[in-house]
Amino acid sequence: MFRKEIKVLDCTIRDGGLMNNHLFTDDQVRRIFRAANDSGVDYVELGYKADENQFKRGEFGPMKFCTEKDLENIIGNGDDLKCKISVMADIGRFNPADVIPASESYVDMMRIASYIKDIDKAIDLVNQIKAKGYETTINIMAVSHARENELDEALEQIEKESGVDVVYLVDSFGALYSEQIAYLAKKYKSILATREIGIHAHNNQQLAFANTIEAVIQNINYLDGTILGMGRAAGNCPMELLLGFLKNPKFDLRPILAVLESDFVGLQKDVEWGYTIPYMITGILDLHPRSGMKLRNSENKDDYLKFYDKLTSETEF
Amino acid sequence: MFRKEIKVLDCTIRDGGLMNNHLFTDDQVRRIFRAANDSGVDYVELGYKADENQFKRGEFGPMKFCTEKDLENIIGNGDDLKCKISVMADIGRFNPADVIPASESYVDMMRIASYIKDIDKAIDLVNQIKAKGYETTINIMAVSHARENELDEALEQIEKESGVDVVYLVDSFGALYSEQIAYLAKKYKSILATREIGIHAHNNQQLAFANTIEAVIQNINYLDGTILGMGRAAGNCPMELLLGFLKNPKFDLRPILAVLESDFVGLQKDVEWGYTIPYMITGILDLHPRSGMKLRNSENKDDYLKFYDKLTSETEF
Repeated sequence: MFRKEIKVLDCTIRDGGLMNNHLFTDDQVRRIFRAANDSGVDYVELGYKADENQFKRGEFGPMKFCTEKDLENIIGNGDDLKCKISVMADIGRFNPADVIPASESYVDMMRIASYIKDIDKAIDLVNQIKAKGYETTINIMAVSHARENELDEALEQIEKESGVDVVYLVDSFGALYSEQIAYLAKKYKSILATREIGIHAHNNQQLAFANTIEAVIQNINYLDGTILGMGRAAGNCPMELLLGFLKNPKFDLRPILAVLESDFVGLQKDVEWGYTIPYMITGILDLHPRSGMKLRNSENKDDYLKFYDKLTSETEF
Repeated sequence: MFRKEIKVLDCTIRDGGLMNNHLFTDDQVRRIFRAANDSGVDYVELGYKADENQFKRGEFGPMKFCTEKDLENIIGNGDDLKCKISVMADIGRFNPADVIPASESYVDMMRIASYIKDIDKAIDLVNQIKAKGYETTINIMAVSHARENELDEALEQIEKESGVDVVYLVDSFGALYSEQIAYLAKKYKSILATREIGIHAHNNQQLAFANTIEAVIQNINYLDGTILGMGRAAGNCPMELLLGFLKNPKFDLRPILAVLESDFVGLQKDVEWGYTIPYMITGILDLHPRSGMKLRNSENKDDYLKFYDKLTSETEF
């Protein structure tokens, strides 16, 4: 039996692109996009809407910017699509004045990533974007670091002041256990009584899939996944596992297996992501993975003990 | 807060050895053993008691056999050990008449791996071994394939007829979700009222750690893990994650991090184990990983779609 309200969002290109500055080839992006579309997922998130005054084209691939022209180059005319298109925007890194009406855009949904401290800005942005006809989400990042009263307040404010459709619980550091996901899910559901809730998990402790299942049990309906878990640092909930778990017959694992074979065997050789000991360490310490990413890009990438000792001496005092 | 009844068993060498015929160097085994001992785990399982008439020394490393001499070569005199020593025996692959009294052996605990159909033999073996003074376990393999009435009967028989100390719930195929672990754990606890229960998980769906946490929640006290999850096919619950989760201050992650650095970076280059797409496929289809292992050892190791189509056409009819 399946729950028809469940929506699956593939953000392989968007989150995975954080590990290679979105320097995929156009053909890679096309194949990954088509595989996700063909698998029956509800949304495919192709990248970021980043400000070209802040980020340089060439240093970053087209999916960092996702202009209509960039999207057309990947999607074609889009008449044959089963999925909707999503892009993400970081507060302060894009200009909402540049956003054209949804009716003229390839984009169906815009997701705003926000820390709790920026929630006023997120609400303002979302309301502007919503007015242009887009579906919208607010993805509250790093919820494992949130002070509980500030989180409560932010959720109440979103419920009262925003027109947002979906609010995401984001375990940016891969620090949460399923019991904590259940606790937070109940909180989100109770305060955000008129909105949908989403989950975006990271895999530092190999719990991204398990935590996404827990979210489903807690009646969360918007589920993020990425193919082979490709995403920042330890990556995300693997889409192939999520589709294997969900019982809705509209999902088809075969296009995902085909693109795993054609593209991800190679991508794994060129780009590092996924469970490694440094990301496990930042996960259990509930820290941003940036120190782990720095280590993995250095000559000392396997100096686990020194890395652990450094982080624990920094965090304990 | 921690539960003092929890016992952790490291079976890196035993289960990991299934991927290299236990052809570790003696020094590797010594370092891995010492790291596990120093980390504070309660038991270290060094290998199998296999019959030398059935398996050839040289084709298999010493930890396939675990004679007293083999164990002495790894352990030394053992006066300084914090951990107890465990070995595993497969029904029909070792001779119980060869087992010396526990008081004369390095071994503290013998674990009998059994399918449900062999439960009579397992009980007979365990009673013989128990009489020689060993702690004993029965590890009921492939529980995801068990018919429920046969499982009930086997558990009732163990409770009535055996002197076994611990009965393990073994998800050999990495097919179970946490809800199913909870269901089975309740069954084991209720029928085996006078015994301890253990969990041994496989990682085909990246759920080995999550399912082990679920087992803890369900009051299961014996927990298996392996360093970097090294074990058959997709491997096991990673010990580094398990120790990061458990709150008992007797556990120390640092020796595990040190041996991950000294030995597992290299082992990972020489031996393949862990989450891969073929093992994910056998996991979601609830199949033995042998077809996946065969594929990974072939030239077509990344032909995921053909592999999936073959297995699904075989299993559906």
